[in-house]
Amino acid sequence: MLIVGELINSSRKSIQPALESRDEQFIRQLARRQVHAGASYVDVNAGTFVDAEPEILSWLVEVVQGETGAPCSIDSSNPRAIEAALAVHRGRAMVNSVTLEDSRYEGIVPLVVRYGCKIVGLCMDGSGIPATAAERVRAARTLVERLTADGVPSGDIYLDPLVQPLATGTGNGVVVLETIGLVTREMGLQCICGLSNVSYGLPARKLINRAFLVLAMGAGLGAAIVDPLDRQLMALIRASEALLDRDPSCRAFLAAFRRGELEP
Amino acid sequence: MLIVGELINSSRKSIQPALESRDEQFIRQLARRQVHAGASYVDVNAGTFVDAEPEILSWLVEVVQGETGAPCSIDSSNPRAIEAALAVHRGRAMVNSVTLEDSRYEGIVPLVVRYGCKIVGLCMDGSGIPATAAERVRAARTLVERLTADGVPSGDIYLDPLVQPLATGTGNGVVVLETIGLVTREMGLQCICGLSNVSYGLPARKLINRAFLVLAMGAGLGAAIVDPLDRQLMALIRASEALLDRDPSCRAFLAAFRRGELEP
Repeated sequence: MLIVGELINSSRKSIQPALESRDEQFIRQLARRQVHAGASYVDVNAGTFVDAEPEILSWLVEVVQGETGAPCSIDSSNPRAIEAALAVHRGRAMVNSVTLEDSRYEGIVPLVVRYGCKIVGLCMDGSGIPATAAERVRAARTLVERLTADGVPSGDIYLDPLVQPLATGTGNGVVVLETIGLVTREMGLQCICGLSNVSYGLPARKLINRAFLVLAMGAGLGAAIVDPLDRQLMALIRASEALLDRDPSCRAFLAAFRRGELEP
Repeated sequence: MLIVGELINSSRKSIQPALESRDEQFIRQLARRQVHAGASYVDVNAGTFVDAEPEILSWLVEVVQGETGAPCSIDSSNPRAIEAALAVHRGRAMVNSVTLEDSRYEGIVPLVVRYGCKIVGLCMDGSGIPATAAERVRAARTLVERLTADGVPSGDIYLDPLVQPLATGTGNGVVVLETIGLVTREMGLQCICGLSNVSYGLPARKLINRAFLVLAMGAGLGAAIVDPLDRQLMALIRASEALLDRDPSCRAFLAAFRRGELEP
Protein backbone atom coordinates (compact mmCIF):
# COMPACT_ATOMS: atom_id res chain seq x y z
CA MET A 1 0.00 0.00 0.00
CA LEU A 2 1.34 3.36 -1.01
CA ILE A 3 0.58 5.84 1.77
CA VAL A 4 0.56 9.58 1.16
CA GLY A 5 0.62 11.51 4.46
CA GLU A 6 -1.98 14.25 4.31
CA LEU A 7 -1.22 16.36 7.37
CA ILE A 8 0.78 19.26 5.89
CA ASN A 9 -2.19 21.08 4.39
CA SER A 10 -2.84 24.78 4.84
CA SER A 11 -6.58 24.21 5.20
CA ARG A 12 -5.89 22.53 8.57
CA LYS A 13 -6.17 24.86 11.54
CA SER A 14 -2.76 24.13 13.06
CA ILE A 15 -0.91 24.31 9.75
CA GLN A 16 -1.98 27.71 8.47
CA PRO A 17 -0.13 29.71 11.18
CA ALA A 18 2.91 27.40 10.95
CA LEU A 19 3.15 28.23 7.26
CA GLU A 20 2.58 31.95 7.82
CA SER A 21 5.49 32.07 10.23
CA ARG A 22 7.58 29.59 8.19
CA ASP A 23 7.89 27.41 11.32
CA GLU A 24 10.51 25.02 10.00
CA GLN A 25 10.77 22.91 13.17
CA PHE A 26 7.02 22.29 13.21
CA ILE A 27 6.97 21.21 9.57
CA ARG A 28 10.09 19.08 9.95
CA GLN A 29 8.58 17.23 12.87
CA LEU A 30 5.26 16.63 11.13
CA ALA A 31 7.05 15.34 8.04
CA ARG A 32 9.29 13.05 10.09
CA ARG A 33 6.43 11.63 12.13
CA GLN A 34 4.40 10.82 9.02
CA VAL A 35 7.29 9.06 7.28
CA HIS A 36 8.16 7.22 10.48
CA ALA A 37 4.54 6.02 10.69
CA GLY A 38 4.65 4.57 7.18
CA ALA A 39 4.03 7.37 4.66
CA SER A 40 5.94 6.87 1.38
CA TYR A 41 5.00 10.35 0.14
CA VAL A 42 4.42 13.53 2.10
CA ASP A 43 1.62 15.67 0.73
CA VAL A 44 2.28 19.41 0.72
CA ASN A 45 -0.57 21.86 0.22
CA ALA A 46 -0.48 25.64 0.58
CA GLY A 47 -3.65 26.29 -1.40
CA THR A 48 -5.12 28.84 1.00
CA PHE A 49 -2.26 31.26 0.38
CA VAL A 50 -3.11 32.01 -3.28
CA ASP A 51 -0.43 34.59 -4.21
CA ALA A 52 2.23 33.19 -1.89
CA GLU A 53 1.44 29.57 -2.83
CA PRO A 54 4.45 29.09 -5.20
CA GLU A 55 6.93 30.39 -2.66
CA ILE A 56 5.45 28.48 0.31
CA LEU A 57 5.07 25.23 -1.63
CA SER A 58 8.71 25.25 -2.74
CA TRP A 59 9.78 26.10 0.83
CA LEU A 60 7.70 23.14 2.06
CA VAL A 61 9.34 20.76 -0.41
CA GLU A 62 12.80 21.84 0.74
CA VAL A 63 11.96 21.52 4.42
CA VAL A 64 10.17 18.15 4.08
CA GLN A 65 12.84 16.63 1.87
CA GLY A 66 15.64 18.10 3.95
CA GLU A 67 14.24 16.30 6.97
CA THR A 68 13.02 13.00 5.50
CA GLY A 69 14.39 12.55 1.98
CA ALA A 70 10.91 11.28 1.07
CA PRO A 71 9.26 12.37 -2.17
CA CYS A 72 6.40 14.85 -1.98
CA SER A 73 2.88 14.87 -3.31
CA ILE A 74 2.54 18.38 -4.73
CA ASP A 75 -1.08 19.14 -3.92
CA SER A 76 -2.12 22.11 -6.00
CA SER A 77 -4.13 23.10 -9.03
CA ASN A 78 -1.92 26.12 -9.72
CA PRO A 79 0.68 25.42 -12.43
CA ARG A 80 2.96 28.23 -11.16
CA ALA A 81 3.02 26.74 -7.67
CA ILE A 82 3.55 23.22 -9.01
CA GLU A 83 6.44 24.41 -11.18
CA ALA A 84 8.10 26.23 -8.27
CA ALA A 85 7.80 23.10 -6.11
CA LEU A 86 9.06 20.71 -8.81
CA ALA A 87 12.05 22.98 -9.51
CA VAL A 88 13.43 22.27 -6.02
CA HIS A 89 12.13 18.70 -5.60
CA ARG A 90 14.67 15.87 -5.58
CA GLY A 91 13.63 12.47 -6.97
CA ARG A 92 10.21 11.76 -8.46
CA ALA A 93 7.35 13.79 -7.07
CA MET A 94 3.66 13.04 -7.41
CA VAL A 95 1.45 15.86 -8.68
CA ASN A 96 -2.08 15.97 -7.28
CA SER A 97 -4.07 16.52 -9.47
CA VAL A 98 -5.04 16.94 -13.11
CA THR A 99 -8.42 16.85 -14.86
CA LEU A 100 -9.57 17.03 -18.46
CA GLU A 101 -10.39 20.71 -17.99
CA ASP A 102 -8.24 22.37 -20.68
CA SER A 103 -6.56 25.19 -18.76
CA ARG A 104 -5.67 22.90 -15.85
CA TYR A 105 -4.53 20.06 -18.12
CA GLU A 106 -2.39 22.30 -20.32
CA GLY A 107 -0.82 24.08 -17.37
CA ILE A 108 0.11 20.91 -15.47
CA VAL A 109 0.79 18.01 -17.83
CA PRO A 110 3.82 19.53 -19.61
CA LEU A 111 5.42 19.95 -16.16
CA VAL A 112 4.63 16.35 -15.26
CA VAL A 113 6.27 15.16 -18.48
CA ARG A 114 9.28 17.46 -18.11
CA TYR A 115 9.97 16.41 -14.51
CA GLY A 116 8.95 12.75 -14.94
CA CYS A 117 6.42 12.91 -12.10
CA LYS A 118 3.67 10.60 -11.05
CA ILE A 119 0.27 12.15 -11.55
CA VAL A 120 -3.13 11.89 -9.89
CA GLY A 121 -5.99 12.14 -12.39
CA LEU A 122 -9.53 12.85 -11.26
CA CYS A 123 -12.36 10.65 -12.64
CA MET A 124 -14.47 13.60 -13.78
CA ASP A 125 -15.43 15.25 -17.04
CA GLY A 126 -16.25 18.80 -18.07
CA SER A 127 -19.66 18.71 -16.41
CA GLY A 128 -18.42 17.80 -12.94
CA ILE A 129 -18.36 14.57 -10.95
CA PRO A 130 -20.34 11.84 -12.74
CA ALA A 131 -23.02 10.09 -10.70
CA THR A 132 -22.25 6.49 -11.72
CA ALA A 133 -19.16 4.32 -11.67
CA ALA A 134 -19.51 3.62 -15.40
CA GLU A 135 -19.42 7.34 -16.18
CA ARG A 136 -16.42 7.93 -13.89
CA VAL A 137 -14.59 5.11 -15.63
CA ARG A 138 -15.45 6.62 -19.02
CA ALA A 139 -13.98 9.95 -17.90
CA ALA A 140 -10.92 8.14 -16.53
CA ARG A 141 -10.43 6.33 -19.83
CA THR A 142 -10.50 9.61 -21.78
CA LEU A 143 -8.05 11.22 -19.36
CA VAL A 144 -5.65 8.26 -19.46
CA GLU A 145 -5.72 8.18 -23.27
CA ARG A 146 -4.83 11.85 -23.41
CA LEU A 147 -2.12 11.55 -20.76
CA THR A 148 -0.43 8.57 -22.38
CA ALA A 149 -0.63 10.23 -25.82
CA ASP A 150 1.14 13.22 -24.26
CA GLY A 151 3.93 11.03 -22.90
CA VAL A 152 2.91 10.05 -19.37
CA PRO A 153 3.47 6.29 -18.84
CA SER A 154 0.26 4.62 -17.68
CA GLY A 155 2.12 3.15 -14.69
CA ASP A 156 2.71 6.69 -13.42
CA ILE A 157 -0.99 7.54 -13.39
CA TYR A 158 -3.12 7.19 -10.24
CA LEU A 159 -6.84 7.65 -10.78
CA ASP A 160 -8.89 9.27 -8.03
CA PRO A 161 -12.49 7.93 -8.00
CA LEU A 162 -13.65 11.07 -6.12
CA VAL A 163 -15.05 10.41 -2.69
CA GLN A 164 -18.18 12.35 -1.72
CA PRO A 165 -19.95 12.45 1.66
CA LEU A 166 -22.24 9.61 2.63
CA ALA A 167 -24.31 12.26 4.39
CA THR A 168 -25.34 13.74 1.05
CA GLY A 169 -26.06 10.36 -0.58
CA THR A 170 -25.92 6.91 0.99
CA GLY A 171 -24.77 5.48 -2.38
CA ASN A 172 -21.65 7.66 -2.43
CA GLY A 173 -19.50 4.96 -0.87
CA VAL A 174 -20.63 2.21 -3.21
CA VAL A 175 -20.01 4.26 -6.35
CA VAL A 176 -16.39 4.78 -5.28
CA LEU A 177 -15.88 1.08 -4.50
CA GLU A 178 -17.35 0.16 -7.90
CA THR A 179 -15.16 2.70 -9.67
CA ILE A 180 -12.05 1.35 -7.93
CA GLY A 181 -13.02 -2.19 -8.95
CA LEU A 182 -13.49 -1.22 -12.60
CA VAL A 183 -10.32 0.91 -12.82
CA THR A 184 -8.04 -1.61 -11.14
CA ARG A 185 -9.51 -4.90 -12.43
CA GLU A 186 -10.81 -3.96 -15.89
CA MET A 187 -8.48 -1.14 -16.88
CA GLY A 188 -5.49 -2.53 -14.99
CA LEU A 189 -4.62 0.92 -13.65
CA GLN A 190 -3.89 2.21 -10.16
CA CYS A 191 -6.31 4.07 -7.93
CA ILE A 192 -5.64 6.53 -5.15
CA CYS A 193 -8.09 8.31 -2.92
CA GLY A 194 -8.55 10.36 0.17
CA LEU A 195 -10.94 9.09 2.82
CA SER A 196 -12.16 11.91 4.95
CA ASN A 197 -14.77 13.32 2.58
CA VAL A 198 -16.83 10.15 2.96
CA SER A 199 -17.55 10.82 6.64
CA TYR A 200 -18.17 14.57 6.34
CA GLY A 201 -21.29 15.54 8.30
CA LEU A 202 -21.49 12.27 10.26
CA PRO A 203 -20.31 11.42 13.78
CA ALA A 204 -17.52 8.91 14.53
CA ARG A 205 -15.69 10.06 11.42
CA LYS A 206 -12.45 8.18 12.05
CA LEU A 207 -14.38 4.92 12.40
CA ILE A 208 -16.12 5.49 9.06
CA ASN A 209 -12.83 6.44 7.39
CA ARG A 210 -11.16 3.27 8.67
CA ALA A 211 -13.93 0.96 7.48
CA PHE A 212 -13.97 2.74 4.14
CA LEU A 213 -10.26 2.28 3.62
CA VAL A 214 -10.51 -1.46 4.26
CA LEU A 215 -13.47 -1.75 1.87
CA ALA A 216 -11.57 0.27 -0.75
CA MET A 217 -8.50 -1.96 -0.39
CA GLY A 218 -10.73 -4.98 -0.92
CA ALA A 219 -12.03 -3.34 -4.09
CA GLY A 220 -8.46 -2.88 -5.36
CA LEU A 221 -7.18 0.40 -3.93
CA GLY A 222 -3.38 0.42 -3.86
CA ALA A 223 -2.65 3.98 -2.70
CA ALA A 224 -4.34 6.34 -0.28
CA ILE A 225 -4.01 9.86 1.04
CA VAL A 226 -4.48 9.45 4.77
CA ASP A 227 -3.46 10.51 8.26
CA PRO A 228 -0.63 8.04 8.94
CA LEU A 229 -0.61 9.08 12.61
CA ASP A 230 -3.99 7.31 13.04
CA ARG A 231 -2.57 4.12 14.55
CA GLN A 232 -5.78 2.14 14.25
CA LEU A 233 -6.06 3.05 10.58
CA MET A 234 -2.48 2.02 9.89
CA ALA A 235 -2.95 -1.23 11.83
CA LEU A 236 -6.05 -2.06 9.75
CA ILE A 237 -4.05 -1.34 6.58
CA ARG A 238 -1.31 -3.77 7.72
CA ALA A 239 -3.88 -6.45 8.51
CA SER A 240 -5.72 -5.91 5.22
CA GLU A 241 -2.48 -6.16 3.24
CA ALA A 242 -1.85 -9.54 4.85
CA LEU A 243 -5.45 -10.71 4.31
CA LEU A 244 -5.37 -9.64 0.65
CA ASP A 245 -2.15 -11.61 0.11
CA ARG A 246 -0.14 -8.48 -0.61
CA ASP A 247 2.29 -9.13 2.25
CA PRO A 248 4.49 -12.17 1.54
CA SER A 249 4.68 -14.45 4.60
CA CYS A 250 2.87 -11.66 6.55
CA ARG A 251 6.36 -10.23 7.01
CA ALA A 252 5.40 -6.54 7.16
CA PHE A 253 2.49 -7.37 9.48
CA LEU A 254 4.72 -9.29 11.88
CA ALA A 255 7.39 -6.58 11.78
CA ALA A 256 4.78 -3.93 12.62
CA PHE A 257 3.59 -6.11 15.49
CA ARG A 258 7.12 -6.42 16.85
CA ARG A 259 7.53 -2.64 16.68
CA GLY A 260 4.38 -2.33 18.79
CA GLU A 261 2.49 -0.52 16.03
CA LEU A 262 -0.56 -2.81 16.04
CA GLU A 263 -1.56 -2.07 19.63
CA PRO A 264 -4.18 0.68 20.11
CA MET B 1 -26.02 -7.76 8.73
CA LEU B 2 -27.21 -10.90 10.44
CA ILE B 3 -25.04 -11.45 13.51
CA VAL B 4 -24.76 -14.86 15.17
CA GLY B 5 -23.25 -14.55 18.66
CA GLU B 6 -20.57 -17.22 19.04
CA LEU B 7 -19.74 -17.11 22.74
CA ILE B 8 -21.77 -20.06 24.10
CA ASN B 9 -19.46 -22.77 22.83
CA SER B 10 -18.20 -25.63 24.97
CA SER B 11 -14.75 -25.47 23.40
CA ARG B 12 -14.21 -22.11 25.14
CA LYS B 13 -12.45 -22.35 28.49
CA SER B 14 -15.01 -20.46 30.58
CA ILE B 15 -18.00 -22.23 29.04
CA GLN B 16 -17.10 -25.89 29.60
CA PRO B 17 -17.40 -25.73 33.43
CA ALA B 18 -20.54 -23.58 33.20
CA LEU B 19 -22.16 -26.29 31.10
CA GLU B 20 -20.92 -29.09 33.35
CA SER B 21 -22.56 -27.44 36.35
CA ARG B 22 -25.60 -26.27 34.31
CA ASP B 23 -24.90 -22.70 35.47
CA GLU B 24 -28.13 -21.15 34.26
CA GLN B 25 -27.36 -17.61 35.45
CA PHE B 26 -24.03 -17.58 33.60
CA ILE B 27 -25.60 -18.75 30.35
CA ARG B 28 -28.57 -16.38 30.70
CA GLN B 29 -26.24 -13.43 31.15
CA LEU B 30 -24.03 -14.37 28.21
CA ALA B 31 -27.08 -14.81 25.99
CA ARG B 32 -28.58 -11.49 27.08
CA ARG B 33 -25.34 -9.56 26.59
CA GLN B 34 -24.88 -10.91 23.07
CA VAL B 35 -28.44 -10.08 22.01
CA HIS B 36 -28.17 -6.66 23.61
CA ALA B 37 -24.96 -6.03 21.63
CA GLY B 38 -26.69 -6.82 18.34
CA ALA B 39 -26.79 -10.61 17.85
CA SER B 40 -29.91 -11.80 15.99
CA TYR B 41 -29.12 -15.46 16.67
CA VAL B 42 -27.36 -17.02 19.64
CA ASP B 43 -25.09 -19.92 18.71
CA VAL B 44 -25.21 -22.89 21.09
CA ASN B 45 -22.50 -25.54 20.94
CA ALA B 46 -21.93 -28.42 23.35
CA GLY B 47 -19.79 -30.48 21.01
CA THR B 48 -17.14 -31.39 23.57
CA PHE B 49 -19.67 -33.34 25.66
CA VAL B 50 -20.29 -36.13 23.10
CA ASP B 51 -22.75 -38.40 24.97
CA ALA B 52 -24.39 -35.61 26.92
CA GLU B 53 -24.56 -33.29 23.89
CA PRO B 54 -28.28 -33.83 23.14
CA GLU B 55 -29.33 -33.12 26.71
CA ILE B 56 -27.04 -30.09 27.15
CA LEU B 57 -27.92 -28.59 23.77
CA SER B 58 -31.66 -28.74 24.49
CA TRP B 59 -31.05 -27.29 27.97
CA LEU B 60 -29.07 -24.45 26.34
CA VAL B 61 -31.86 -23.69 23.88
CA GLU B 62 -34.39 -23.46 26.72
CA VAL B 63 -32.18 -21.24 28.86
CA VAL B 64 -31.14 -18.93 25.99
CA GLN B 65 -34.66 -18.56 24.61
CA GLY B 66 -36.15 -18.23 28.09
CA GLU B 67 -33.90 -15.25 28.68
CA THR B 68 -33.82 -13.54 25.27
CA GLY B 69 -36.55 -14.98 23.06
CA ALA B 70 -33.95 -14.90 20.26
CA PRO B 71 -33.62 -17.83 17.86
CA CYS B 72 -30.63 -20.14 18.25
CA SER B 73 -27.99 -21.35 15.87
CA ILE B 74 -27.80 -25.08 16.68
CA ASP B 75 -24.10 -25.72 16.22
CA SER B 76 -23.60 -29.45 15.97
CA SER B 77 -22.89 -32.23 13.52
CA ASN B 78 -24.76 -34.80 15.63
CA PRO B 79 -28.32 -35.42 14.35
CA ARG B 80 -29.47 -36.70 17.76
CA ALA B 81 -28.31 -33.50 19.46
CA ILE B 82 -29.81 -31.32 16.73
CA GLU B 83 -33.14 -33.11 17.01
CA ALA B 84 -33.23 -32.74 20.80
CA ALA B 85 -32.49 -29.01 20.47
CA LEU B 86 -35.04 -28.42 17.71
CA ALA B 87 -37.73 -30.26 19.69
CA VAL B 88 -37.65 -27.54 22.35
CA HIS B 89 -36.78 -24.56 20.13
CA ARG B 90 -39.43 -21.89 19.58
CA GLY B 91 -39.53 -20.05 16.25
CA ARG B 92 -37.14 -20.75 13.39
CA ALA B 93 -33.71 -22.01 14.37
CA MET B 94 -30.61 -22.07 12.22
CA VAL B 95 -28.76 -25.38 11.99
CA ASN B 96 -24.97 -25.15 11.61
CA SER B 97 -23.98 -27.11 9.55
CA VAL B 98 -24.53 -29.62 6.78
CA THR B 99 -22.21 -31.00 4.11
CA LEU B 100 -22.60 -33.31 1.13
CA GLU B 101 -21.19 -36.16 3.21
CA ASP B 102 -24.00 -38.75 3.07
CA SER B 103 -24.36 -39.74 6.70
CA ARG B 104 -24.31 -36.13 7.88
CA TYR B 105 -26.63 -34.93 5.13
CA GLU B 106 -29.16 -37.70 5.67
CA GLY B 107 -29.15 -37.28 9.42
CA ILE B 108 -29.63 -33.51 9.40
CA VAL B 109 -31.60 -32.37 6.35
CA PRO B 110 -34.86 -34.22 7.15
CA LEU B 111 -34.85 -32.42 10.51
CA VAL B 112 -34.25 -29.07 8.81
CA VAL B 113 -37.18 -29.70 6.49
CA ARG B 114 -39.45 -30.97 9.27
CA TYR B 115 -38.75 -27.99 11.55
CA GLY B 116 -38.47 -25.38 8.77
CA CYS B 117 -35.03 -24.24 9.88
CA LYS B 118 -32.44 -22.13 8.22
CA ILE B 119 -29.36 -24.15 7.36
CA VAL B 120 -25.64 -23.44 7.03
CA GLY B 121 -24.03 -25.44 4.21
CA LEU B 122 -20.27 -25.85 3.98
CA CYS B 123 -18.59 -25.22 0.61
CA MET B 124 -16.75 -28.54 0.57
CA ASP B 125 -16.99 -31.85 -1.19
CA GLY B 126 -16.17 -35.43 -0.29
CA SER B 127 -12.44 -34.88 -0.55
CA GLY B 128 -12.28 -32.01 1.94
CA ILE B 129 -11.94 -28.25 1.59
CA PRO B 130 -11.26 -27.31 -2.03
CA ALA B 131 -8.24 -25.08 -2.67
CA THR B 132 -9.83 -22.63 -5.10
CA ALA B 133 -12.89 -20.42 -5.03
CA ALA B 134 -14.20 -21.99 -8.25
CA GLU B 135 -14.09 -25.46 -6.66
CA ARG B 136 -15.79 -24.24 -3.48
CA VAL B 137 -18.54 -22.67 -5.57
CA ARG B 138 -18.93 -25.92 -7.51
CA ALA B 139 -19.36 -27.83 -4.24
CA ALA B 140 -21.81 -25.18 -3.03
CA ARG B 141 -23.84 -25.48 -6.21
CA THR B 142 -24.13 -29.26 -5.81
CA LEU B 143 -25.15 -28.89 -2.16
CA VAL B 144 -27.75 -26.21 -2.92
CA GLU B 145 -29.24 -28.29 -5.75
CA ARG B 146 -29.60 -31.25 -3.42
CA LEU B 147 -31.03 -29.16 -0.59
CA THR B 148 -33.61 -27.41 -2.74
CA ALA B 149 -34.60 -30.73 -4.35
CA ASP B 150 -35.17 -32.04 -0.84
CA GLY B 151 -37.43 -29.14 0.05
CA VAL B 152 -35.19 -26.48 1.63
CA PRO B 153 -36.00 -23.04 0.12
CA SER B 154 -32.84 -21.45 -1.30
CA GLY B 155 -33.50 -18.32 0.78
CA ASP B 156 -33.05 -20.41 3.94
CA ILE B 157 -29.57 -21.58 2.92
CA TYR B 158 -26.42 -19.82 4.13
CA LEU B 159 -23.21 -20.98 2.49
CA ASP B 160 -20.03 -21.03 4.55
CA PRO B 161 -16.95 -20.41 2.35
CA LEU B 162 -14.71 -22.06 5.00
CA VAL B 163 -12.13 -19.78 6.52
CA GLN B 164 -8.65 -21.23 7.03
CA PRO B 165 -5.67 -19.65 8.79
CA LEU B 166 -3.58 -17.07 6.97
CA ALA B 167 -0.63 -18.53 8.88
CA THR B 168 -0.88 -21.77 6.88
CA GLY B 169 -1.32 -20.04 3.52
CA THR B 170 -1.28 -16.31 2.75
CA GLY B 171 -3.88 -16.89 0.01
CA ASN B 172 -6.43 -18.28 2.47
CA GLY B 173 -8.10 -14.91 2.94
CA VAL B 174 -8.41 -14.13 -0.75
CA VAL B 175 -9.98 -17.49 -1.61
CA VAL B 176 -12.73 -16.84 0.94
CA LEU B 177 -13.36 -13.31 -0.37
CA GLU B 178 -13.54 -14.65 -3.93
CA THR B 179 -15.91 -17.43 -2.88
CA ILE B 180 -18.19 -14.94 -1.13
CA GLY B 181 -18.21 -12.76 -4.25
CA LEU B 182 -19.13 -15.67 -6.51
CA VAL B 183 -21.81 -17.11 -4.18
CA THR B 184 -23.53 -13.80 -3.47
CA ARG B 185 -23.15 -12.05 -6.84
CA GLU B 186 -23.26 -14.92 -9.33
CA MET B 187 -25.39 -17.48 -7.52
CA GLY B 188 -27.51 -14.88 -5.72
CA LEU B 189 -27.29 -16.82 -2.45
CA GLN B 190 -26.35 -15.81 1.08
CA CYS B 191 -23.00 -16.40 2.74
CA ILE B 192 -22.16 -16.75 6.40
CA CYS B 193 -18.80 -17.27 8.01
CA GLY B 194 -16.83 -17.26 11.20
CA LEU B 195 -13.78 -15.05 11.41
CA SER B 196 -11.43 -16.30 14.03
CA ASN B 197 -9.85 -19.14 12.06
CA VAL B 198 -8.26 -16.63 9.71
CA SER B 199 -6.02 -15.20 12.43
CA TYR B 200 -5.07 -18.50 14.08
CA GLY B 201 -1.33 -18.61 14.75
CA LEU B 202 -0.78 -14.88 14.24
CA PRO B 203 -0.53 -12.04 16.78
CA ALA B 204 -3.08 -9.20 17.04
CA ARG B 205 -5.86 -11.64 16.20
CA LYS B 206 -8.78 -9.31 16.92
CA LEU B 207 -7.31 -6.72 14.55
CA ILE B 208 -7.05 -9.31 11.76
CA ASN B 209 -10.57 -10.57 12.43
CA ARG B 210 -11.98 -7.04 12.25
CA ALA B 211 -10.25 -6.20 8.97
CA PHE B 212 -11.35 -9.53 7.55
CA LEU B 213 -14.99 -8.97 8.43
CA VAL B 214 -14.99 -5.58 6.69
CA LEU B 215 -13.33 -7.09 3.60
CA ALA B 216 -15.85 -9.96 3.62
CA MET B 217 -18.77 -7.52 3.88
CA GLY B 218 -17.37 -5.65 0.90
CA ALA B 219 -17.27 -8.96 -1.01
CA GLY B 220 -20.96 -9.57 -0.20
CA LEU B 221 -21.08 -11.26 3.20
CA GLY B 222 -24.50 -10.73 4.81
CA ALA B 223 -24.19 -12.89 7.93
CA ALA B 224 -21.37 -13.67 10.33
CA ILE B 225 -20.66 -15.77 13.38
CA VAL B 226 -18.76 -13.39 15.65
CA ASP B 227 -18.13 -12.15 19.17
CA PRO B 228 -20.73 -9.38 19.41
CA LEU B 229 -19.13 -8.14 22.64
CA ASP B 230 -16.13 -6.92 20.58
CA ARG B 231 -17.23 -3.29 20.44
CA GLN B 232 -14.71 -2.27 17.81
CA LEU B 233 -15.83 -5.11 15.57
CA MET B 234 -19.49 -4.19 15.94
CA ALA B 235 -18.70 -0.50 15.32
CA LEU B 236 -16.86 -1.41 12.10
CA ILE B 237 -19.86 -3.51 11.04
CA ARG B 238 -22.20 -0.53 11.61
CA ALA B 239 -19.90 1.76 9.62
CA SER B 240 -19.52 -0.78 6.81
CA GLU B 241 -23.28 -1.26 6.56
CA ALA B 242 -23.65 2.50 6.07
CA LEU B 243 -20.78 2.66 3.56
CA LEU B 244 -22.19 -0.26 1.56
CA ASP B 245 -25.58 1.48 1.38
CA ARG B 246 -27.28 -1.22 3.44
CA ASP B 247 -28.40 1.24 6.13
CA PRO B 248 -31.09 3.62 4.80
CA SER B 249 -30.31 7.23 5.79
CA CYS B 250 -27.51 5.82 8.01
CA ARG B 251 -30.28 5.38 10.59
CA ALA B 252 -28.85 2.32 12.39
CA PHE B 253 -25.40 3.91 12.39
CA LEU B 254 -26.68 7.12 13.94
CA ALA B 255 -28.79 5.21 16.50
CA ALA B 256 -25.73 3.16 17.52
CA PHE B 257 -23.78 6.41 17.88
CA ARG B 258 -26.45 7.92 20.12
CA ARG B 259 -26.39 4.79 22.29
CA GLY B 260 -22.63 5.30 22.69
CA GLU B 261 -21.81 2.03 20.95
CA LEU B 262 -19.36 3.49 18.45
CA GLU B 263 -16.89 4.75 21.04
CA PRO B 264 -13.96 2.43 21.87
